[in-house]
Amino acid sequence: MEEVEEEVKRIVEQVKELHDSSTSFVSSSSQEELSLRNRASVVDSSIRRLHSTLASDKHLDPKLFEKLEEDLQRAKCMLADGDTSSFLPSKPQAGRFVRMFLGPVNVRASRKDIQLKVKEEYNSYRDRTALLFLVFPAILLTLRSYVWDGCLPAFPVQLYQAWLLFLYAGLVMRENILRANGSDIRSWWIYHHYFAMAMSLVSLTWEIKGQPNCVQKQKGVRLFLQWAMMQGVAMLLQNRYQRQRLYTRIALGKAKRMDVVWGETAGVDGQLLLLFPILFTLQGFEAYVGLQLLRTVLTGVVAEWQVLVCGILLVVMAIGNFINTVETLMVKSRFKAKMKRSKSRAELD
Amino acid sequence: MEEVEEEVKRIVEQVKELHDSSTSFVSSSSQEELSLRNRASVVDSSIRRLHSTLASDKHLDPKLFEKLEEDLQRAKCMLADGDTSSFLPSKPQAGRFVRMFLGPVNVRASRKDIQLKVKEEYNSYRDRTALLFLVFPAILLTLRSYVWDGCLPAFPVQLYQAWLLFLYAGLVMRENILRANGSDIRSWWIYHHYFAMAMSLVSLTWEIKGQPNCVQKQKGVRLFLQWAMMQGVAMLLQNRYQRQRLYTRIALGKAKRMDVVWGETAGVDGQLLLLFPILFTLQGFEAYVGLQLLRTVLTGVVAEWQVLVCGILLVVMAIGNFINTVETLMVKSRFKAKMKRSKSRAELD
Repeated sequence: MEEVEEEVKRIVEQVKELHDSSTSFVSSSSQEELSLRNRASVVDSSIRRLHSTLASDKHLDPKLFEKLEEDLQRAKCMLADGDTSSFLPSKPQAGRFVRMFLGPVNVRASRKDIQLKVKEEYNSYRDRTALLFLVFPAILLTLRSYVWDGCLPAFPVQLYQAWLLFLYAGLVMRENILRANGSDIRSWWIYHHYFAMAMSLVSLTWEIKGQPNCVQKQKGVRLFLQWAMMQGVAMLLQNRYQRQRLYTRIALGKAKRMDVVWGETAGVDGQLLLLFPILFTLQGFEAYVGLQLLRTVLTGVVAEWQVLVCGILLVVMAIGNFINTVETLMVKSRFKAKMKRSKSRAELD
Repeated sequence: MEEVEEEVKRIVEQVKELHDSSTSFVSSSSQEELSLRNRASVVDSSIRRLHSTLASDKHLDPKLFEKLEEDLQRAKCMLADGDTSSFLPSKPQAGRFVRMFLGPVNVRASRKDIQLKVKEEYNSYRDRTALLFLVFPAILLTLRSYVWDGCLPAFPVQLYQAWLLFLYAGLVMRENILRANGSDIRSWWIYHHYFAMAMSLVSLTWEIKGQPNCVQKQKGVRLFLQWAMMQGVAMLLQNRYQRQRLYTRIALGKAKRMDVVWGETAGVDGQLLLLFPILFTLQGFEAYVGLQLLRTVLTGVVAEWQVLVCGILLVVMAIGNFINTVETLMVKSRFKAKMKRSKSRAELD
């Protein structure tokens, strides 16, 4: 039986060796990481400083100014899009909400390809949910008309509301994680999902009354379901657009962000023309549903606090969405104008 | 203005250098990591193989057998507790639930000290919530008796239920993350929190009826709140115990797990004598509350499906908790007996 003894001895030896190499690898790589982090933070703040120096310098030749600005922009993109991105000083590690759920675990991917994978997975999550967003309320409303005699039973509606709660919680988590990974998603869209989460939670406690008079009593729920269907359509369209942007970026690989934006605005202009009117219509409808809910409270048809809160939340979300969509449009068109200018200048030269 | 131009040039140079060093660091360290991973997985499976060889070998001298077993155990602990732990083949990355919320992000900490921090943070999260567990329902029940005339209003109870939902969702997330980080938490405790989450969600849709007859109608809610208070006490005690174990482990630093277990069983035996009777009482009360809920449905006092589901869930949780607590007790006493045996043998030698 010496054979087994030998083998155990050999394994113990191997484990010791492995243990030593792991320890030395971890300590050396964390040292190197620290030094990269320091360098990245120094360079990052130098770029910031130069940016403001350039902006405040009134005597600079406009052409030189634009060239230097472009150089700095390019440098910034190289930092943000390359492997250095994981060593850049990070924004405070995701929001309080995410930390409450996850604790101090690091949600920042250390490699660029994983960061892109996180984003791609976020998009496909949205795709899957957008379909449910569309189908689930459509089924409920159809059954209501043809099977349930105009009166929605409580259970399936509550199931839908519970699903919405989990969906929005998931979106909020993922968006916070995307942010920690360097995505430039606007804060409003995250807040919007917090509000939507609060609304789903409140609506769960909102009793869904049945007969008699249920057509009148359930008006709010019906409007809400119709709004959800439109939301589904908008999400599908938005996803198509976002994904096209992401694919361009992946295809260009380690290309600088500036180049990517060229490809980006080229391919999807037509879609934007379709997307924005739909978004505005949706926001109008959202505000309409909110106001209708508020009206039912004020006229005394239903007197529950849940209806009041949902109404207020919908109106707030509609206004915020509108403002942020307009701002995004303005940034895009400003950027395009700038690109055109520098392109035509390049052709003149 | 040449000065600014110079500086921009220098920064661009620096960015390029940093970019190159980052890229080479990322690629070299991921290669080294891969090789460590491979070695760890080979060693890991060798240990497993030897374990079963030893177990099936009937001709081995019992003393030699025990020695070899101990050597293997020690080797396993060295792998699991040292820096190698992050290169061991992982269990499939957290559960489906967590993946749904977080996407493909890696929740595994790469360094042992962060893993311990995650665990410590989990404990302090439990501490904070255990206090609320105790205080929140206590306030509700006190107000009910002295202010609300024996009748709980719906809103504060629903607030409590919503809080429970978020609390349990957080616990489930954190436990899944702990698991991905190599914790040996029993699966049941995670399932238990899934069930508790389902119960909070269901109870949110459960209408809390008021006058008249509210003492009878709210019996279920009252029992539930009393149970929650006891749960709070048990959580506080459990936390004290768990934390003491963890501190011992941190204090011993990179000591092997075997050593740690020595320190562990030494310090907290007295607490276990207190903890287990309380846990069993709590489980009995949990089952009692569940059966009471089922009775109110069967005798027709309330006819809502929510009461039925909550009753069933409570009974299932009570049974599962009981079985798992007994199993834990048995493992602990078996382990202690073995330790005593090998200790007395060591003294004889």
